[in-house]
Amino acid sequence: MNKNYQNLVEKLEEISRLNGVLSTIAWDQEVMMPSGAAHARAKQIGVLSGVIHARMTDPFLGECLEQLQDQTEHFNAIEQCNIEEARRNYDLMTKIPRQLVQALAELGSHGHAVWVQARQENKFSDFAPVIKEFLKLKKEWAACAFPDMSAYDANIDLFERGTTTAEITVIFDQLKAALIPLIHRIEQHSYHPDTSFLQGHFPIERQAALARKISENIGFQFDKGRMDISVHPFCGGSHPTDVRITTRYNTHDFVESLYAIIHETGHALYEQGRMLEYSDLPVSESLTMGIHESQSLFWERMIAQSRVFCAHYFETICETFPSSLQRATVDTFYQAINACKPGFIRVEADELTYPLHIILRFEIEKGLFEGSIAVDDLPQVWNEKMATYLGIKPPTDTLGVLQDSHWSSGAFGYFPSYTLGAIYACQFFMTMQKALPDTDKNIEAGNFKPVKNWLNEKIHSQGRLYTPQELVLRVTGESLNPQHLINYLKTKYSALYKLDD
Amino acid sequence: MNKNYQNLVEKLEEISRLNGVLSTIAWDQEVMMPSGAAHARAKQIGVLSGVIHARMTDPFLGECLEQLQDQTEHFNAIEQCNIEEARRNYDLMTKIPRQLVQALAELGSHGHAVWVQARQENKFSDFAPVIKEFLKLKKEWAACAFPDMSAYDANIDLFERGTTTAEITVIFDQLKAALIPLIHRIEQHSYHPDTSFLQGHFPIERQAALARKISENIGFQFDKGRMDISVHPFCGGSHPTDVRITTRYNTHDFVESLYAIIHETGHALYEQGRMLEYSDLPVSESLTMGIHESQSLFWERMIAQSRVFCAHYFETICETFPSSLQRATVDTFYQAINACKPGFIRVEADELTYPLHIILRFEIEKGLFEGSIAVDDLPQVWNEKMATYLGIKPPTDTLGVLQDSHWSSGAFGYFPSYTLGAIYACQFFMTMQKALPDTDKNIEAGNFKPVKNWLNEKIHSQGRLYTPQELVLRVTGESLNPQHLINYLKTKYSALYKLDD
Repeated sequence: MNKNYQNLVEKLEEISRLNGVLSTIAWDQEVMMPSGAAHARAKQIGVLSGVIHARMTDPFLGECLEQLQDQTEHFNAIEQCNIEEARRNYDLMTKIPRQLVQALAELGSHGHAVWVQARQENKFSDFAPVIKEFLKLKKEWAACAFPDMSAYDANIDLFERGTTTAEITVIFDQLKAALIPLIHRIEQHSYHPDTSFLQGHFPIERQAALARKISENIGFQFDKGRMDISVHPFCGGSHPTDVRITTRYNTHDFVESLYAIIHETGHALYEQGRMLEYSDLPVSESLTMGIHESQSLFWERMIAQSRVFCAHYFETICETFPSSLQRATVDTFYQAINACKPGFIRVEADELTYPLHIILRFEIEKGLFEGSIAVDDLPQVWNEKMATYLGIKPPTDTLGVLQDSHWSSGAFGYFPSYTLGAIYACQFFMTMQKALPDTDKNIEAGNFKPVKNWLNEKIHSQGRLYTPQELVLRVTGESLNPQHLINYLKTKYSALYKLDD
Repeated sequence: MNKNYQNLVEKLEEISRLNGVLSTIAWDQEVMMPSGAAHARAKQIGVLSGVIHARMTDPFLGECLEQLQDQTEHFNAIEQCNIEEARRNYDLMTKIPRQLVQALAELGSHGHAVWVQARQENKFSDFAPVIKEFLKLKKEWAACAFPDMSAYDANIDLFERGTTTAEITVIFDQLKAALIPLIHRIEQHSYHPDTSFLQGHFPIERQAALARKISENIGFQFDKGRMDISVHPFCGGSHPTDVRITTRYNTHDFVESLYAIIHETGHALYEQGRMLEYSDLPVSESLTMGIHESQSLFWERMIAQSRVFCAHYFETICETFPSSLQRATVDTFYQAINACKPGFIRVEADELTYPLHIILRFEIEKGLFEGSIAVDDLPQVWNEKMATYLGIKPPTDTLGVLQDSHWSSGAFGYFPSYTLGAIYACQFFMTMQKALPDTDKNIEAGNFKPVKNWLNEKIHSQGRLYTPQELVLRVTGESLNPQHLINYLKTKYSALYKLDD
């Protein structure tokens, strides 16, 4: 084997393993750590992050990459991918001046504290300076990281590489044109599903047992992962053989927690399905935030919000919570969990209104980076867009522009991934249904293996061998196309809300 | 502040924090990790251990120490301690040739696997070569690490610094002379306490709730620690604010698990009681294995095996397990949990026979290092000593010489710490009873604060400011003296077994 490539692999594996350690203690912090240990843990994470940063910017790594630069023809696709990914990461880590890295880290830590306080006190003006400073630094960062891109494109590229502001604008405009009138028709319509039987008392142990059962049925391997409780549901872990999902339980609402676990199981199946033989190398890593989200939404929405899924689990759910669901049937349960209701909070939004929450944020970020929106005007812009898109106006900024943590840590360009993920998910699902025509029958029978195997083969095991654009083309035969999601939502919600009756 | 000292402190704190991370993932491995992640975790631990080793042997650390060498008079006691401890560790880490470090690590990993197999198959001859190789390497190690000491002294010094084979021999001979006849008298005596009511069915949730309550009553701070389940009880964690104890539960025996938790709580109180202002520096660290064990045994034996402790908790225990303990009284309960019965297995031994298990191992290790015992004769030597000391002969080597894991990882010189700890514990307890004459009354009333505060002040917060020898002198006014333990055991067991009746 080529000596430089061998050295590169060794260094990359070490970095990946140290990142695995960091992930484990980050998981521990959210799930296990006693409250009094926060200060000590922050110091531990600080030192370990420093170690990893030093490894990622090690000049020796740069030398290996230099030597490998013009030799790509000697390597197979997997090796080439590892070299290219390492190059991209090394450049990203070393092109940014040390002071800028530090300034961003400090603002992230400070900004989060300011945001928590501002949200609590409904005082956007306290948070505005943080956003202004972040925009300044993030533009500087973009000029260093991707000098050929516009500043917002560069920030998007970090999460959804290869996708541009212009492309997202076209896609989101299509969505807007279709979804706003659809939501409006539903709102105006006289029929609304009964959701009252979803309220009640749902003991946590029963919820947890049900969640575990469904997660396992879908394909989560508990010998290579865990399920625990945290304040915010997430999928973490340190390796494809150590994938950890969490949820939170509310004794008055089992649907939220159950669907959170199904969502996180979708993320987890991606991680557990990665190529094991290259598990500490970039080629095996998940592709982008959007593709990751496509996997969680695939299971949460395409599968678990379907009527066939409800039909399969209805009896189990009724047995789990016998007193609450007496009045429900498979159909009323299916209708209730799919109820559409415009609301202020993104993370509580349903499948149909969710994209509008994202489009609003995307348009604001775009305007902020391009200079067409001023930070001080954000509350007003936010509320106007909410009124236009969803017909509601947040009574406070806490329920509006201050609701998300993303901007407080400088994560601009992240939001589009959520809805790109939904579009990917739907397009993948449509392709799968053609490839596996028995899918509905299988799901209704509780046989999720063909679905999981299809995703494993087509997506999870592909790692970073292809760009997201190449992957979607290879898997579905066409480029990313929001029309699939639009058709799916129109068909589903027209039927649910009897819009054509 | 002195620049070299400042640099030293910074480096030491970083090492301590990385060790905290390592501890957390080691804890995770025993308590949380899914089984399928073992291989990936081993790789992660390998890389992190390498990072820590590189930090500990960093020539820059050596230069700082060099610069500080002759300046100790400029520093206060805490600073001096940090410098001296850092010097000792640095020397220990850098004096051993790389090949020897590697050979020991490889043999440890290989040796453990061989031991597991040999124990399972009752085949000492398979394990003998591992012991032989370890003896060879450990002698080499001793010649590098502590060239002025005998090889066995050097190995002991690693766990119980400043204590020699000669000193331990004198102390253990005194114990042997007193305990062997005492145990013999008990065995020959007609009276034996009724322990039948300790058998029954004890639901795990109830055991766990009781263990948690007692641990908390004693002083364990759950905002700075956790209590979980693992195969072998241990006390781990990453920092005085993050101390994690574990136990295992057996539905047929609540005493074993409860006293394991009290034992681990004793270790945990030491860790939680360390000087917080220097928590990532050597001066705050626990002193030796023997002193650590003295803290666990203090609570497990001196406190929790006393009649006053039983009196305080008897009602709670009866309420927790109402069906089992109907026939018991405070006195019969106290007698039952203190029953003395020679057995083959060290970790199951009672307070009175335990020292003989240790003395046997100490004498064997000493003989192995001095050359007076041959490895191949170990089963025979072991069984003869068991017959002489405890009057029983193991029917298999699995129940004899193969029972402990220590030698499989090369931990020679560790065993004496257990019984030195028991002697320290008793001597500390006797001193405390004089200083706090209300101790019995307080314990019977469930007021453990004065005891905990006394240990915090006299021992936990002293860190490494004194050697163990200095500490015991400062706290008790005399050197380590096994007579206290002998008197305590004679008095307690004569009464328990009515030997003078």
